[in-house]
Amino acid sequence: MKTKRTKIHRPKAINPKGFKDYSEIEVNERSKMLKSVGEIYFTYGFEFLETPAVETVEALGSFLPDKDRPNGGVFSWLDEDQTWLALRYDLTAPLARFYAQNRNRLAAPYRRYAMGPVWRNEKPGLGRYKQFYQCDADTVGTSSPAADAEICMMLSDILDHLGISSNNFQIKLNNRKILDGVLEKIGLCGEENDGATTDKRGIVLRAIDKLDRLGLSGVTQLLGKGREDESGDFAHGAELSKMQVSVITDFLTSLESTAAKTCAKLRESVSGSQVGVEGINELENIYELCLAGGTSDSRISVDPGIVRGLGYYTGTVFEADLTFQKHDKSGRKRQFGSVAGGGRYDDLIKRFTGQAIPATGVSLGVDRLLAAISEINEKSTSSDGPVVVTVMDKSLMPYYQQIVQELRNNKIRSEMFLGNPKELGKQLKYADQRKSPIAIIVGSDEIGKGLVQLKNLHLGAELSKTIKSNEEWKSRPSQLEIKRHDLIAEVRKMLDGAQVQN
Amino acid sequence: MKTKRTKIHRPKAINPKGFKDYSEIEVNERSKMLKSVGEIYFTYGFEFLETPAVETVEALGSFLPDKDRPNGGVFSWLDEDQTWLALRYDLTAPLARFYAQNRNRLAAPYRRYAMGPVWRNEKPGLGRYKQFYQCDADTVGTSSPAADAEICMMLSDILDHLGISSNNFQIKLNNRKILDGVLEKIGLCGEENDGATTDKRGIVLRAIDKLDRLGLSGVTQLLGKGREDESGDFAHGAELSKMQVSVITDFLTSLESTAAKTCAKLRESVSGSQVGVEGINELENIYELCLAGGTSDSRISVDPGIVRGLGYYTGTVFEADLTFQKHDKSGRKRQFGSVAGGGRYDDLIKRFTGQAIPATGVSLGVDRLLAAISEINEKSTSSDGPVVVTVMDKSLMPYYQQIVQELRNNKIRSEMFLGNPKELGKQLKYADQRKSPIAIIVGSDEIGKGLVQLKNLHLGAELSKTIKSNEEWKSRPSQLEIKRHDLIAEVRKMLDGAQVQN
Repeated sequence: MKTKRTKIHRPKAINPKGFKDYSEIEVNERSKMLKSVGEIYFTYGFEFLETPAVETVEALGSFLPDKDRPNGGVFSWLDEDQTWLALRYDLTAPLARFYAQNRNRLAAPYRRYAMGPVWRNEKPGLGRYKQFYQCDADTVGTSSPAADAEICMMLSDILDHLGISSNNFQIKLNNRKILDGVLEKIGLCGEENDGATTDKRGIVLRAIDKLDRLGLSGVTQLLGKGREDESGDFAHGAELSKMQVSVITDFLTSLESTAAKTCAKLRESVSGSQVGVEGINELENIYELCLAGGTSDSRISVDPGIVRGLGYYTGTVFEADLTFQKHDKSGRKRQFGSVAGGGRYDDLIKRFTGQAIPATGVSLGVDRLLAAISEINEKSTSSDGPVVVTVMDKSLMPYYQQIVQELRNNKIRSEMFLGNPKELGKQLKYADQRKSPIAIIVGSDEIGKGLVQLKNLHLGAELSKTIKSNEEWKSRPSQLEIKRHDLIAEVRKMLDGAQVQN
Repeated sequence: MKTKRTKIHRPKAINPKGFKDYSEIEVNERSKMLKSVGEIYFTYGFEFLETPAVETVEALGSFLPDKDRPNGGVFSWLDEDQTWLALRYDLTAPLARFYAQNRNRLAAPYRRYAMGPVWRNEKPGLGRYKQFYQCDADTVGTSSPAADAEICMMLSDILDHLGISSNNFQIKLNNRKILDGVLEKIGLCGEENDGATTDKRGIVLRAIDKLDRLGLSGVTQLLGKGREDESGDFAHGAELSKMQVSVITDFLTSLESTAAKTCAKLRESVSGSQVGVEGINELENIYELCLAGGTSDSRISVDPGIVRGLGYYTGTVFEADLTFQKHDKSGRKRQFGSVAGGGRYDDLIKRFTGQAIPATGVSLGVDRLLAAISEINEKSTSSDGPVVVTVMDKSLMPYYQQIVQELRNNKIRSEMFLGNPKELGKQLKYADQRKSPIAIIVGSDEIGKGLVQLKNLHLGAELSKTIKSNEEWKSRPSQLEIKRHDLIAEVRKMLDGAQVQN
């Protein structure tokens, strides 16, 4: 009895929405960059830690900027043993869990670095994916501003090491406590626990965080009644009084020509607020240590406009901005902007331990940094395609196999052609597609005479499309007849020549 | 009004069950190994591909050995847009998706390699975690046995490259078609679609896969009525007739002193079965190509007992076994066993495309290989702890910062002590914990005279526990007073000395 024919359901060969595959070139560029960054972290005494991709939802907490959807933005599921699990959304939350778990055996302070993918269940956009890389360094267990200073210096060294010249970036430094002082002065102190004040503080922080994008007038609207955006949507403001708004805008415009002058002006803004003064003292201390460590004052500045979005920062905050221009999608020139940021978060580990454990750290936006590096550098010319040993005669495959293994044993990337060997032309097209520098061609004639044909594909790329027969290519100048026992030396010579020409 | 005191719920600082954190040493050892493996893959012309951790459940399919629980063993969740997503459980399923998706633009044949974590929602055991690493290479788009041969040779090169000597491993080769031929002879041909035969075939395959563990008598029981294990559980057998069982056991005991003799004996076992003869022809072809490529016949053998558990293999199957002894938990000596395996799976991509696309590949068990390497090698002696610049006087921190930055600029891993600097003893204990080779100690006295104290911690480790005052250590032989401007040279000299002593 024949089985009834039913329509077979075929799965779709697609990535889940917002996820991408990375090619060899992309992975190599990222690896190269992460290796450079890792070297700096290591030299600064930081220790590598790899935590798993999966954490309990409880341990992760919800520290994503999107406050409106608790646990929104995270991929999570209920495990068989009734525990909610989730993919990590950053590298800081796992560090907090790890430190709380292992604090009795870790050196104090504990410097750790980490790099790897994180996952966000957010709407993907142009160049923004649901899986992307972060690369962090954090120091846990000290409240010393020297720890913040060290991280800023390290960030400066990293950008330098990645080939971004010092006139192309700036590390902008601020301290949340200064803003706290300003808010204290206008009656929005963080100590009160009533919801209305907390909400207002939230709106104020988010408004300031948009200074770059909306300018001072946009922020002023958000501090007051609210603001209508280009699409016509209206965002409710913090409903501050005129006096309150002006204290904040004064603070935001405290940027002066030098860090010393900016700090002096900020000191006025927070006069009378203990926490505010503390913030400025820390800021000055960090700035001084950075200069002592050799960071040029052209690389680091004090900028009251930097607040960083994340709710968990408690003191120092900073950001590395690339200051060179790039063309955006619509062809307009604009500053490249932020590629890294971080700050002090003294309460994150307290969630677990009950006691405050000070911590500070930096996170690099790996994809943005890669984009920046490729804006700065010329396109990489490397094409590491393999040498292709063609198959002229199927019965000679053991002989071809010998050749290809000899090349590989000499660390020359190479392949034997494994497709249908009927037409040499197809094999050469394959070699082109693989960006091969050389094709090796041997028939039974050559074997008898102990000879091998080398075809320089970089020289003769355009010819390969028309060549069909063994006879045709014998007359071409891009090929060379050599002795079998000179194979390695001759291939090396041709490879070196190809590199010079590239 | 005071807020009511409520008991605060603290999240537990733990890893989800079956997930572990990796230390710097573990990550470094793994990275080093994967780098070595990647170099071989690359030299063989394979191209790196990184697919994301997340795939649609539909695209992944269910090819885990556990047939009884469809989609069991996988972490999956329903996404907001009603698509079921899952963490990849291996690197082959994502390759099949990727190849089906991009086949029109990829070179044919397409050689790709991949490495990274995979996730299995299975009961964790000793040294078995729910997240672990795989490292694969596959060739898609050719049915040539030369592709299988290439992968076996590559596997042999990899083990060699990793420092496993050739008398310590063996690549065991077989072909599923030979087994198909045997099954055909006893009326269990794969063509029939009735459930009973398929079930029997499944039991037979799983029984053979247990040959290593249960021996021939155990397998014979499973082929017949069934078998009671040590715990008293009874596993139902395939209920084959005596004649059927003896055909299979004859096949399983076809192993002879040489590959040629084994193949000759296998040829008898399958005489009359077309698919069986095809399998033996392929096997001989692969073996011949491996020898032509220089793989010694002591490294590769034909072994009818190798079937590999996964249901998707259709032809060649192979396994790399480490043949040296190790002590298991109970102190008994036993063979290390399998560290890599793979084979040909000609139907996996067909799921997507409808047309058969031949493919073959290998997967390395990264954790088992790492365990093997650490069994073979001496314990690694490297301790890359940083030089620690101690803080004798808080007001001198900018000076210390200068020193530490100078060291870092000269690529000497170093830190300034960032904890509470009250007691020098504590700082030196910290340095010990960090495995620091050198502590640098400078007070205001020394600064005035342009001097620096270097403390050789490897020499004086035991003293550091008792030293409290600045005066005490001045008399110790493990320390050296040097000129500030000789800092880098003297630190280098001391570091070199420390390395020689280790």
